[in-house]
Amino acid sequence: MFETKTNVKLQDTDAAGVMFFVNYFRIAHTAYEAFLKSIGCGLDYIIRQSDYLILIARAEADYMRAFQLGDVITVELKVGRIGETSFDITTVLRDDQGRVGATVKTVHVTVSKQTAEKIALPDQVRRGLQSIS
Amino acid sequence: MFETKTNVKLQDTDAAGVMFFVNYFRIAHTAYEAFLKSIGCGLDYIIRQSDYLILIARAEADYMRAFQLGDVITVELKVGRIGETSFDITTVLRDDQGRVGATVKTVHVTVSKQTAEKIALPDQVRRGLQSIS
Amino acid sequence: MFETKTNVKLQDTDAAGVMFFVNYFRIAHTAYEAFLKSIGCGLDYIIRQSDYLILIARAEADYMRAFQLGDVITVELKVGRIGETSFDITTVLRDDQGRVGATVKTVHVTVSKQTAEKIALPDQVRRGLQSIS
Amino acid sequence: MFETKTNVKLQDTDAAGVMFFVNYFRIAHTAYEAFLKSIGCGLDYIIRQSDYLILIARAEADYMRAFQLGDVITVELKVGRIGETSFDITTVLRDDQGRVGATVKTVHVTVSKQTAEKIALPDQVRRGLQSIS
Repeated sequence: MFETKTNVKLQDTDAAGVMFFVNYFRIAHTAYEAFLKSIGCGLDYIIRQSDYLILIARAEADYMRAFQLGDVITVELKVGRIGETSFDITTVLRDDQGRVGATVKTVHVTVSKQTAEKIALPDQVRRGLQSIS
Repeated sequence: MFETKTNVKLQDTDAAGVMFFVNYFRIAHTAYEAFLKSIGCGLDYIIRQSDYLILIARAEADYMRAFQLGDVITVELKVGRIGETSFDITTVLRDDQGRVGATVKTVHVTVSKQTAEKIALPDQVRRGLQSIS
Repeated sequence: MFETKTNVKLQDTDAAGVMFFVNYFRIAHTAYEAFLKSIGCGLDYIIRQSDYLILIARAEADYMRAFQLGDVITVELKVGRIGETSFDITTVLRDDQGRVGATVKTVHVTVSKQTAEKIALPDQVRRGLQSIS
Repeated sequence: MFETKTNVKLQDTDAAGVMFFVNYFRIAHTAYEAFLKSIGCGLDYIIRQSDYLILIARAEADYMRAFQLGDVITVELKVGRIGETSFDITTVLRDDQGRVGATVKTVHVTVSKQTAEKIALPDQVRRGLQSIS
């Protein structure tokens, strides 16, 4: 498991007084970026230097408890299925009492920059995913 | 069906050159807000004056084709299941050739502002949903 | 003058119940993108096909009146100074009674993609700016 | 001086490959929120429990150097003028070599929640501002 912390900023909230639903995806993606960096495959490297991209094919979130301005959020990232050309990431967002605010699941597919076709997961990505699964 | 149009703005894109995946949810929600307004239940009314809120319990998106800066997007909003205390909205985002870029589905639940408990869909909401389903 | 309309969406607001201050810049930039498109220099063309970029060197906003969820905003874009390598855009955001909510001013500089050095405003940009000034 | 660190995430960038200009304001505001928290006046407290609000009356940014995906940013927040009912905050964003990417200046005004009129800076805010100026 890969864990980070964040907190709910004014820009994350809306006029209903809670975190706007799309921002749970943003927080999950920020944790995912930090995870990729930690396994040596930062998105800056992937986008600017590698010959592949990792696309998001699907994203879903279940909301259990609304976060409010100032709440401290623990973000737990877990690797799910690791396939030939794709993998799943599940992220659980908890408040400071450990209660689940939301779970986010994303499906990621690796494609060649040249052909835009699906390709097998690059070794470094696969090893990194396996390191926490 | 309720239809709107938008286009991909610079702020919607990312360094990979395409629309960032969370912005599909933002566009779907903007169409949803316009739909609510069209049935006389604008979010400004709901949040500031009504005695209920409509929460998002679940959101999911499938991405088929990446939108790029400047693309014109047709947003088709359809009402799915209408339950006792909740309903589903499906939004299809198409490019100017009619090709599907993504589908977004959201599950909405009505709750009382006072008790935070689920309540039956208010009549105006139910009638509005039925008017396009 | 170039004019567009928009409205305040839930994602533009914050827990204080008003539009978050950075979103005034987003709205001004959206009007600027529409203006560029209208003069034949859409940002998609500039970023993907031209040999220049238009950078923002400075941005400033004065806030007079807070917009709220659902407010309809008229966005008036005016071209200010047109220099050798740069130009100014002023955007006034008004509510539906014509009252100014905020004014945004941005300073734009054209640079060569190859050298990253300032270059004279491309003819099409200069003519477009002059067409509404 | 109050200092924080952040980094440029995919959601901060745009199709031109750099950080979108409004996100410098977002980063500056996040540092401001952390500063307010550090002096015991977190925005969650101000918005939900206090009898005043701190509004932004003006915001400006000068951009010197574009940040890119993955860049680590040091955010230096300094208090400028402290007036009777308002104060200035200047935020300098530096890259990991200490080079200035942008400076952001914001003007903040305290108003009563009841009357919406300007009021003298609350003692706790004034003392907090003075503590780092």
